[in-house]
Amino acid sequence: MDVIEKVFSKIGLEFDAEVGAYIHKKTNIPLTVHYDQEKEELVLLDQTKLPFEVAVWRTKDWREAGDPGIKGMIVRGSQAIGCAAGYAMLLAANSFRNLKEDRFTEKMAEAASFLDATRPTASPLRWAVELCMKAMRSALRDGGVEEAIEAIRETADYILASDLIMNWYLRQEGKPLISDGDVIMTHCNGGSLSSSFGGHALGMIEEAYAEGKDIMVISKETRPRSQGFKLTTWELNRAGVPVVIITDNMISSAIERFKVSKVLLGVDRVARDGSVANKIGSADIARVAALYGNIDFYYATSYSTIDLDTDHGSSIPIEERSIEEVTYPYRLEAQDKRVKGILSGKSLGEWPPKEVLVHGKPGKGQIAIYNPAFDVTPPKLIDLIITDIGVFAPQQIRTLTEEKITQIVRERLEKQGVTVPKHIISSRD
Amino acid sequence: MDVIEKVFSKIGLEFDAEVGAYIHKKTNIPLTVHYDQEKEELVLLDQTKLPFEVAVWRTKDWREAGDPGIKGMIVRGSQAIGCAAGYAMLLAANSFRNLKEDRFTEKMAEAASFLDATRPTASPLRWAVELCMKAMRSALRDGGVEEAIEAIRETADYILASDLIMNWYLRQEGKPLISDGDVIMTHCNGGSLSSSFGGHALGMIEEAYAEGKDIMVISKETRPRSQGFKLTTWELNRAGVPVVIITDNMISSAIERFKVSKVLLGVDRVARDGSVANKIGSADIARVAALYGNIDFYYATSYSTIDLDTDHGSSIPIEERSIEEVTYPYRLEAQDKRVKGILSGKSLGEWPPKEVLVHGKPGKGQIAIYNPAFDVTPPKLIDLIITDIGVFAPQQIRTLTEEKITQIVRERLEKQGVTVPKHIISSRD
Repeated sequence: MDVIEKVFSKIGLEFDAEVGAYIHKKTNIPLTVHYDQEKEELVLLDQTKLPFEVAVWRTKDWREAGDPGIKGMIVRGSQAIGCAAGYAMLLAANSFRNLKEDRFTEKMAEAASFLDATRPTASPLRWAVELCMKAMRSALRDGGVEEAIEAIRETADYILASDLIMNWYLRQEGKPLISDGDVIMTHCNGGSLSSSFGGHALGMIEEAYAEGKDIMVISKETRPRSQGFKLTTWELNRAGVPVVIITDNMISSAIERFKVSKVLLGVDRVARDGSVANKIGSADIARVAALYGNIDFYYATSYSTIDLDTDHGSSIPIEERSIEEVTYPYRLEAQDKRVKGILSGKSLGEWPPKEVLVHGKPGKGQIAIYNPAFDVTPPKLIDLIITDIGVFAPQQIRTLTEEKITQIVRERLEKQGVTVPKHIISSRD
Repeated sequence: MDVIEKVFSKIGLEFDAEVGAYIHKKTNIPLTVHYDQEKEELVLLDQTKLPFEVAVWRTKDWREAGDPGIKGMIVRGSQAIGCAAGYAMLLAANSFRNLKEDRFTEKMAEAASFLDATRPTASPLRWAVELCMKAMRSALRDGGVEEAIEAIRETADYILASDLIMNWYLRQEGKPLISDGDVIMTHCNGGSLSSSFGGHALGMIEEAYAEGKDIMVISKETRPRSQGFKLTTWELNRAGVPVVIITDNMISSAIERFKVSKVLLGVDRVARDGSVANKIGSADIARVAALYGNIDFYYATSYSTIDLDTDHGSSIPIEERSIEEVTYPYRLEAQDKRVKGILSGKSLGEWPPKEVLVHGKPGKGQIAIYNPAFDVTPPKLIDLIITDIGVFAPQQIRTLTEEKITQIVRERLEKQGVTVPKHIISSRD
């Protein structure tokens, strides 16, 4: 029984032939990434189809794994991307199997930089690709191409197994903080779907609900990509958790109407001062909730988002994304209204029109669209940061060190039978 | 020269044959409602087409004026609806011209209740309809049907003229509070478009900009109906004002990035305690802005929204609207993704599916959508309420009386040559 099978069995994941993915028995939530050993294919839960259709997407081709797999967001969420990237590297290695060692190394380096570039800001992507390259180089010192492929396979399995086990620890850390009767507001998809399985904020809610706690979740739409509307409600609904959908401007109203007791969000990055960067809108919830005075505000995350090299939240670079994300529904609306005859053929097909739209600061007669992906919540507005290596007040983050984190992670993984493959020296460098 | 012509000329409105509406010379913004005396038609700027197409909608038919005119939101915003309702009553009267007095009165009462019901929460609608009925009854005491029609015409003109003049006063009250260099966040369309012309929050910004003040506006999308994205940006852009569009979850981020100095919003209703009900999301902005400590938070409105009969903000009834408003873009998205082949023919055409969607509190496996139209901002979070009868701290609202308000309004109107038609006893009862 290999490590992946052991971990799947421990977590409670079973293959479901109808969906074509592994499903968690307790919560009904699917694993987002797995590798079909028999067919040598990467299998991803196709998140571009959710919530309208549940289907998996399969590929043997490492380029396709990179794009559309990662770049086209068939898989999304930094942890899930990391897991997919490991297997994308394995697909690459498989396809270069018949090359000589030098050429194999060369082609693998090409694949690595191609995959690295598919999502520029996802650090677990680069970490996973580099870990596979390190295992390959180490294996090639003792053996040949076949040994290198085996080392990459072990590494990709290790990345997935680690994610599953550390998410299990995160749920154990978080569940005691969830009370019977809680009404929890969340935002974006800090969910199982953005990890391999069971991670972030929603994993612990889904499991706590399955174990009998009475919980209701308020899911914010999360414009412009609407992960809250599309993914979070789908995921929570699959686990049976009662959900109320609200648009992003209903924070105060929903807090008052539904008596929200907690806010629980995923994390993009934690800085050394305990600031948290997360999906745009997280800081708005923190500020609104703070004025009510009786709402716990928690972030939940993997150790991999703790960035001790960034001293302050203000130093976290904020990605600005395409304005198409914002305007997309209105292009569809203009089209719909033309079809219905509400608009004439002379009407604009989009708003704002190109002639007035500018990037940067608008001048007279100009319109700009601002689309930052993240905002930063200052530590004073955060009650707890729940992680897979422990629960911290934001002020405690600065007491952590890379060594301490690596040690806790390794201990926890080993305790569950997941050991670092011999070709990898450190799991976090 | 009748009162309407005099007022148009004072405000600076000139007929623009290309648009088919009166346009304000200084700001380029169109009047939303007028009456074509020659053709005896109500003319509305068609707001269902904005921002994609600028067109007017005309009707001779009072039923059409009610629906789709008012009900279908060709005209929207409580003040503009009030103005349209006056002329809808005139259309009704025209169409009953050949009836005997008894039958005329009967049919007018029918038209009045039909129009009343087109938008259940817009109080200026009921006020305008009742004012026309009162004028009719008074005219019928001295004369016949022709005199009654004339009295309704005078009343409808008076409603529009009053709105134009009081909005002019509102701009005079508000403009001194807008400073050169201001970066102003707004939400929904508290704009000229939701009055006859130049009202609410945006009217004063547009005129201040036209007079040379350097202003930039941050316009929040305002899901689910997106009046901020569609109407506010269109209106501000027509007046040349630089605009940045943000989604509703970018309050903190935009405040920090653009150094927002003021928040300026329209009003749905002001309670006696100085609480303000306005478009859902207004209270979120108030709470977030409050924590920054250096942002002025203003509401701007007509005296007609001051409701001295409602003691506390908590007593203001909050309309819940159709969940279709929330799900509409996703139905279009599902359709678009089917056309593009991203989704298969087996996919759901909408989310959430009917089987799991419930109204009220969701249970296991259920999803609800919460869609309140308004929220209430407590007085302690409001710096000033700018009105057409003066600028008030929220605590000062309780010092007003109906008599005082009526007196100020009448004085201001008379000063500008708008006198109450003889068939109306009071302009506010």
